[in-house]
Amino acid sequence: MKIIPGGVTAPKGFYAAGLHVGIRKNKLKKDMALLFCEVPANAAGVFTTNTVQAAPVIWDRKLCGEVRKCQALVVNSGVANTCTGPRGYENVVHMAELTADLLSIAPEMVAVASTGVIGIPLPMDVVENGIRRLSGSLDDSAEAGTAAAEAIMTTDLYRKEMAVTLEVKGKTITIGGMCKGSGMINPNLGTVLSFLTTDLNISAELLQKTLERDVLDTYNMISVDGDTSTNDTVMVLANGMAGNEELTETDPEYQDFVRALREINTGFAKAIASDGEGATKMFEVVLRGMEHKEDARKLAKSIVSSNLVKCAVYGADANWGRIVCAMGQTGIVFDPYQVDICIKSEAGELMIVKDGMTTDYDEDRATEILSPDSVCFIADMHAGAESAAAWGCDLTYEYIKKNAEYRK
Amino acid sequence: MKIIPGGVTAPKGFYAAGLHVGIRKNKLKKDMALLFCEVPANAAGVFTTNTVQAAPVIWDRKLCGEVRKCQALVVNSGVANTCTGPRGYENVVHMAELTADLLSIAPEMVAVASTGVIGIPLPMDVVENGIRRLSGSLDDSAEAGTAAAEAIMTTDLYRKEMAVTLEVKGKTITIGGMCKGSGMINPNLGTVLSFLTTDLNISAELLQKTLERDVLDTYNMISVDGDTSTNDTVMVLANGMAGNEELTETDPEYQDFVRALREINTGFAKAIASDGEGATKMFEVVLRGMEHKEDARKLAKSIVSSNLVKCAVYGADANWGRIVCAMGQTGIVFDPYQVDICIKSEAGELMIVKDGMTTDYDEDRATEILSPDSVCFIADMHAGAESAAAWGCDLTYEYIKKNAEYRK
Repeated sequence: MKIIPGGVTAPKGFYAAGLHVGIRKNKLKKDMALLFCEVPANAAGVFTTNTVQAAPVIWDRKLCGEVRKCQALVVNSGVANTCTGPRGYENVVHMAELTADLLSIAPEMVAVASTGVIGIPLPMDVVENGIRRLSGSLDDSAEAGTAAAEAIMTTDLYRKEMAVTLEVKGKTITIGGMCKGSGMINPNLGTVLSFLTTDLNISAELLQKTLERDVLDTYNMISVDGDTSTNDTVMVLANGMAGNEELTETDPEYQDFVRALREINTGFAKAIASDGEGATKMFEVVLRGMEHKEDARKLAKSIVSSNLVKCAVYGADANWGRIVCAMGQTGIVFDPYQVDICIKSEAGELMIVKDGMTTDYDEDRATEILSPDSVCFIADMHAGAESAAAWGCDLTYEYIKKNAEYRK
Repeated sequence: MKIIPGGVTAPKGFYAAGLHVGIRKNKLKKDMALLFCEVPANAAGVFTTNTVQAAPVIWDRKLCGEVRKCQALVVNSGVANTCTGPRGYENVVHMAELTADLLSIAPEMVAVASTGVIGIPLPMDVVENGIRRLSGSLDDSAEAGTAAAEAIMTTDLYRKEMAVTLEVKGKTITIGGMCKGSGMINPNLGTVLSFLTTDLNISAELLQKTLERDVLDTYNMISVDGDTSTNDTVMVLANGMAGNEELTETDPEYQDFVRALREINTGFAKAIASDGEGATKMFEVVLRGMEHKEDARKLAKSIVSSNLVKCAVYGADANWGRIVCAMGQTGIVFDPYQVDICIKSEAGELMIVKDGMTTDYDEDRATEILSPDSVCFIADMHAGAESAAAWGCDLTYEYIKKNAEYRK
């Protein structure tokens, strides 16, 4: 596996476009993206678990669950198309139909995604005009992929795209992707949108299974503010144009594909955490030594989700009682007097807790280690062989400013 | 039922003391309290559900679960006595024994509670000296109750005490209480400590059952920052000195007692929410119209726990998408298009969501209603007859300052 430059247009057969069409007021912010594939691609997707689901999520869930094929994806930022009733869903159908018509493909193979303010309708005249312009701007260049990655951003500070290549059955296959994280004009949600493309030949069923497993350790392990969006969407499109014989689960190269997918999605997860609203720092939690993987995940996730831990990270304060407290409140049974905790960063490494109690470490040294932009907490529970990682960002004045004062 | 002035010393037979003994550096802050009852009182208690439990919580759980009698309570602030190993538990036993010795009572009837920094040991010479001084200062005056209520505070901005009287079987009985909320020298936890006294004659079993039911709708329905302390403790002591014939569950007056207990604990829950760390505002969520009470509670609790809702309250922004999102992420099934949401305060009332969609309300009017110190969101799910209330505070710069910069 090799990381290469580029994003969604890196694999064979994928075209993209990203433009400012006028959904957002700021003309410097692109607000609509279109992705197109020369042939129908096998599609897999995972979506928000929130009971309240955006209209496009309902549409895409059907696309990935029943149609299992996708040839285009239209995305807008600025308006979430959530809590918009039957009209909201009709707008999704209309977006898919118009895109299909312009690209001469089947409307049921057009995915739709939105991110932005809840509860207001899409400006459909603007959206229609945008789809027309986008369909005339499609290109398979890296720049076109980048334009699409920019168009799905909301208050993200930087675009997020990535690509890797690997060998499968004698063919070089490429996986590309773009995603957006938390931060919106009206940042209700911290919506995660992530779209991956690949020219791998793989069945929709195996792609779905692989993606479902992958998100457990990638997107599901990040927390910016603990709120689960109504619009979260992760999709992978595989068009088979690399020409490899179909990849099956028992092929040795399947694990290479799993690793490549993990590489991109872990990269995106970390990027989303470090670009969380108001964040000044990204922190990683490595949770080791549990009997069950799922327990390791829950403990790690609880730590990155804790407001008190997030504040301590912001203050570079090795306040480990908050870490132990965050683990304890999961309800998962562990012996607190078996827990060791290390802190680590480019500034060094220090064990601050041994057997559940303080090591009487030097606080100044701990603060030094917790001061860089990216820091890590390693907790070893000494109760098994399973581990998990999770990523979070600090909780800052800026987060509150963004979320309290938006409409002012 | 009548609310009267006073706190833990209001019922017959209870004595209290509160002093600065030197656990905390600031001499203006009392840091130890003692409560004493002339006769052994029936005891009930509920404690933190965190897997990590403070040493005194382990002791008190046994007291309420096995001994079921309590004649004294010793509490310190400043040090949580959590993650302190066998030495921490020995210190609890020693505190109980010394208190018992000085008051000539049984050590197994002495409850112990702590709140403060996790992971550092109690300064036992200071604590011992404190217990000696406290046992010489016990008094049944209202002022003594107030001194105790002050001594259990950490960074609480005001003391919390309350008392009510009611008639039970021809006798006037009194219930008094003191509690503390979130905010500590090192605010790891937002520990809730709450101690109620009463001269009611009631069995320990019925008292325990009544308290367990009560906390579901009072303390369990508040959220300052979503972190569950390792030290949370709520206890009720009933000494029977009002002279009433034993109150049983089938007595009509039992419901009066339930209501009186609810009155105090709801008052304390609201006080803890409004005095949450850094809070400028308290908000109440009234969740109506669910089939199951427990679902109503979970939905209400999820709203008051959401960082995004808390930020919106801080900004007086009627950002109702966040409320719907917070309900949806509980996993509880409801029809988003049945939901109505009203906002309410001393400034008026306004329906902002009808059938899950915006009412196109006036934003300025909404901000006006959300501007007072205390505001309310009423969500009606139209899916049943059960309701629940929850209380939270806003998330502010000050919360982050307190929790990021404490050691600086």
